[in-house]
Amino acid sequence: MKLKIKDMDVEAGTTRVVLLHHKDAKLIDIRPMDRVILKKGKRQIISIADIAESSRTIKQGEIGFFDEPLRDLGAKEGDKVGILLAKKPDAVRHIKKKLGGGRLNAKEMNEIVKSTVNNELSQIELAFFVSSCYPNRLSLDETISLTRSIVSNGESLNLKNKRIVDKHCTGGVPGNRTTMVIVPILAAAGLCVPKTSSRSITSPAGTADTMEVLAPVTVPAAKIKKIVEKTGGCIVWGGGVNLAAADDKLIKIRHPLSLDPEGMLLASILAKKHSVGATYVLIDIPVGKETKIKSLRHAQHLKRKFKIVGGKLGMEIHVIFTNGNGPIGNGIGPTLEARDVLYLLRRDPRAPIDLERKCLRMAGKMLRENGFPEGISHARKLLDSGKAYEKMKEIIKEQGGNPNISPDELRPAQHSFHVRAEKSGRLVNIDNFALSRVASIAGAPDDKAAGLYLFKHEKDPVWKGEVLFTVYAGSAEKQKFVKEMVARGTVFKING
Amino acid sequence: MKLKIKDMDVEAGTTRVVLLHHKDAKLIDIRPMDRVILKKGKRQIISIADIAESSRTIKQGEIGFFDEPLRDLGAKEGDKVGILLAKKPDAVRHIKKKLGGGRLNAKEMNEIVKSTVNNELSQIELAFFVSSCYPNRLSLDETISLTRSIVSNGESLNLKNKRIVDKHCTGGVPGNRTTMVIVPILAAAGLCVPKTSSRSITSPAGTADTMEVLAPVTVPAAKIKKIVEKTGGCIVWGGGVNLAAADDKLIKIRHPLSLDPEGMLLASILAKKHSVGATYVLIDIPVGKETKIKSLRHAQHLKRKFKIVGGKLGMEIHVIFTNGNGPIGNGIGPTLEARDVLYLLRRDPRAPIDLERKCLRMAGKMLRENGFPEGISHARKLLDSGKAYEKMKEIIKEQGGNPNISPDELRPAQHSFHVRAEKSGRLVNIDNFALSRVASIAGAPDDKAAGLYLFKHEKDPVWKGEVLFTVYAGSAEKQKFVKEMVARGTVFKING
Repeated sequence: MKLKIKDMDVEAGTTRVVLLHHKDAKLIDIRPMDRVILKKGKRQIISIADIAESSRTIKQGEIGFFDEPLRDLGAKEGDKVGILLAKKPDAVRHIKKKLGGGRLNAKEMNEIVKSTVNNELSQIELAFFVSSCYPNRLSLDETISLTRSIVSNGESLNLKNKRIVDKHCTGGVPGNRTTMVIVPILAAAGLCVPKTSSRSITSPAGTADTMEVLAPVTVPAAKIKKIVEKTGGCIVWGGGVNLAAADDKLIKIRHPLSLDPEGMLLASILAKKHSVGATYVLIDIPVGKETKIKSLRHAQHLKRKFKIVGGKLGMEIHVIFTNGNGPIGNGIGPTLEARDVLYLLRRDPRAPIDLERKCLRMAGKMLRENGFPEGISHARKLLDSGKAYEKMKEIIKEQGGNPNISPDELRPAQHSFHVRAEKSGRLVNIDNFALSRVASIAGAPDDKAAGLYLFKHEKDPVWKGEVLFTVYAGSAEKQKFVKEMVARGTVFKING
Repeated sequence: MKLKIKDMDVEAGTTRVVLLHHKDAKLIDIRPMDRVILKKGKRQIISIADIAESSRTIKQGEIGFFDEPLRDLGAKEGDKVGILLAKKPDAVRHIKKKLGGGRLNAKEMNEIVKSTVNNELSQIELAFFVSSCYPNRLSLDETISLTRSIVSNGESLNLKNKRIVDKHCTGGVPGNRTTMVIVPILAAAGLCVPKTSSRSITSPAGTADTMEVLAPVTVPAAKIKKIVEKTGGCIVWGGGVNLAAADDKLIKIRHPLSLDPEGMLLASILAKKHSVGATYVLIDIPVGKETKIKSLRHAQHLKRKFKIVGGKLGMEIHVIFTNGNGPIGNGIGPTLEARDVLYLLRRDPRAPIDLERKCLRMAGKMLRENGFPEGISHARKLLDSGKAYEKMKEIIKEQGGNPNISPDELRPAQHSFHVRAEKSGRLVNIDNFALSRVASIAGAPDDKAAGLYLFKHEKDPVWKGEVLFTVYAGSAEKQKFVKEMVARGTVFKING
């Protein structure tokens, strides 16, 4: 049967979906959620079929294309396509096997990942796969084959360097923009650091959001390779390259319930490192009451797993545990965080000392373990001499940004107000969740200039009436919402 | 914010979905898969939000409504609706708890079922719930609370009778239309049998599909009550009444992977019985290589569970094990099965003897256990005297069908051909899967007249060239497909 394409202009999200008129569907015996083969010229794709019960949107003889199949088939409104009922991919059987408690071999795992990348699985089937791995149901071997499958079904950078260093942070700490300081230090030392970072999902800023204040971060793989070959480093958005396409799709499914099956977490992180060709990776696990990893015991368990799985994939993995209880740095929100980074690289006295200390500790360790025995003092030298800042300017320039931007040009949002201490005493607790929420309600990260600036950190003494932090909101309405939230008094806890 | 409704004329399937322009979404901080509250006048509903990336289908200021929210809000194209970001329902938290290995109490289970019925959960979240129960992860207490929640969040019949009998078959046997014989026998004896049946999902006919050949089966609850009060029985489609609305939604999610978590299977069956007020239920478990229950051991395990859970809900449960290896009856497909039933009730010699034997065994047991100690001989008397047939005519009439329809008026589809034995010997095996597939490809159940008619059963001796069965296909093309399939020779196995 041949049908005429109607462009629905709707993204289905993770899956290819087409919409059939119910009479056409009946003619070729297709039911909702069945898969169909769509042919146009020599190209063909598999898609999930949905069925329209009346004729208002889809008339008989038409087929509604959502964005994904339209792109993948290279078709447009009005084109004619052939349609046939397709078999379920083998991946569906493997998912059911895993859900029933079975073990997947490397081939089965690869078929699941391949079908995921090829948009052959419905959201429901992907959700079944995620839950079949939750919370700890992937064995070490399965985790390794999942990681390998994600890498082999995505793009790779294929850099020529023999030794490639990388870092990762398991997250949960507002501020904490270590990547943007460490990458230039290491690249200035001559190491190769092709860093891909993520955007925020629920936090006020991801590294990619913050770097984007200084330079474009959506960079195709070929250009990343060029930038890294020229400067030794980069700071780009991982989602802009298909290094781990399967993982990106799985994360969309995991997100609504914040499900982090342990094996998927490991595979997600290590696949991205493996696909840039990393041979050495430092993983920062902040341990704190509001981070994902809440106890040293859990952190130690993960460390062991990271080392085993990474080792099997030919990567040398190092892990450090850091304090995840309070924010790191003063600015929260892309522009304010980028400003902190520039202060730090330019040796401006306004730089946050806690961020500097953490970056030096990590960069020092990475240098020491990669041929620079002086470690932290070498890192400090590169920072103090301005070499790290020069390297950052090179990277910004190569990514297409303005290398000469000054931190004073990075202006926060207009609707600002101070939050002051209601009593004197000691600042005993900052609630990371509540703090992130304040910055998000102010408009971060979509409004890059929105966020907040901290004047006090945990354990600081404070006087009644002193400014604790300043909020920068994107609109008067957002400012109002933030004020209501701050009034609840859950962000800071002062004893005294 | 107020937005103007655009009717998308698309069913989302199980969930309310609306589509926002990306700029509007950003203004009120809504991301894909977030929930929104939609208000029109005094009515409000919660829906999942999806986001259109360009302006072709949804312009700024518009909101695309799929069928479900349009119906539930009672709105139409062009109406203005208010929109607000909604919190996730508590059910999402409970699902995550269960997925992580926790136990759900009655209140938590009820919140999940309630949110399911109210279309507040996305397909992904429902899939997570199904897999949290798979394969045997629901405890007895959880199964009981799931059953109770399905009942209390659906409609009930509220019949006045103190004693209500019902039956159920776990399925997998082609033909096997016992319900349409047993219900009139029991009702003719004076028992109350408000039977709701299902349509086919993958088989060539469900009881509801077959009954529909004789009378309408989509009957609202109030009318079912009237019919049962008048005649003592009915045979209607369960999906036409919201007796177990949550279950219907869960089945849609379970279907793509044919996932049958044990607790959900029990709850699904028993909730439907409980909501019609059944006090006595006979469950027929066919055991066979192509049915869901493949061993007597598994059947015995299920029997025990049915009795415990049913007992807790105040139902007396009886279970019989029957032979599920071959088909029952001669006709396969709605019209051909309805003809068998009429032959049987009218004491026509063309009635299939195996179907009669099975119906008498079951009806006899149900009579004996409900005040008619003569059991099977009483059942036979009601059949032979024509009282059961008279009762069936009453039921057909009350449901709106023609009570005087003759089996000879039930004509099978036109494109017919015989399938003959290729050698002489003994018919040692009929593959139920393959047989069902033949009838499905011929067009059943959507084409009611399509299907096949068996002349030979398992263990029958056959001569080379004898007709094994006749296929009735809905079109020449379908006939061609069936011939190709039959040629593969997998349906019948003859030893000799």
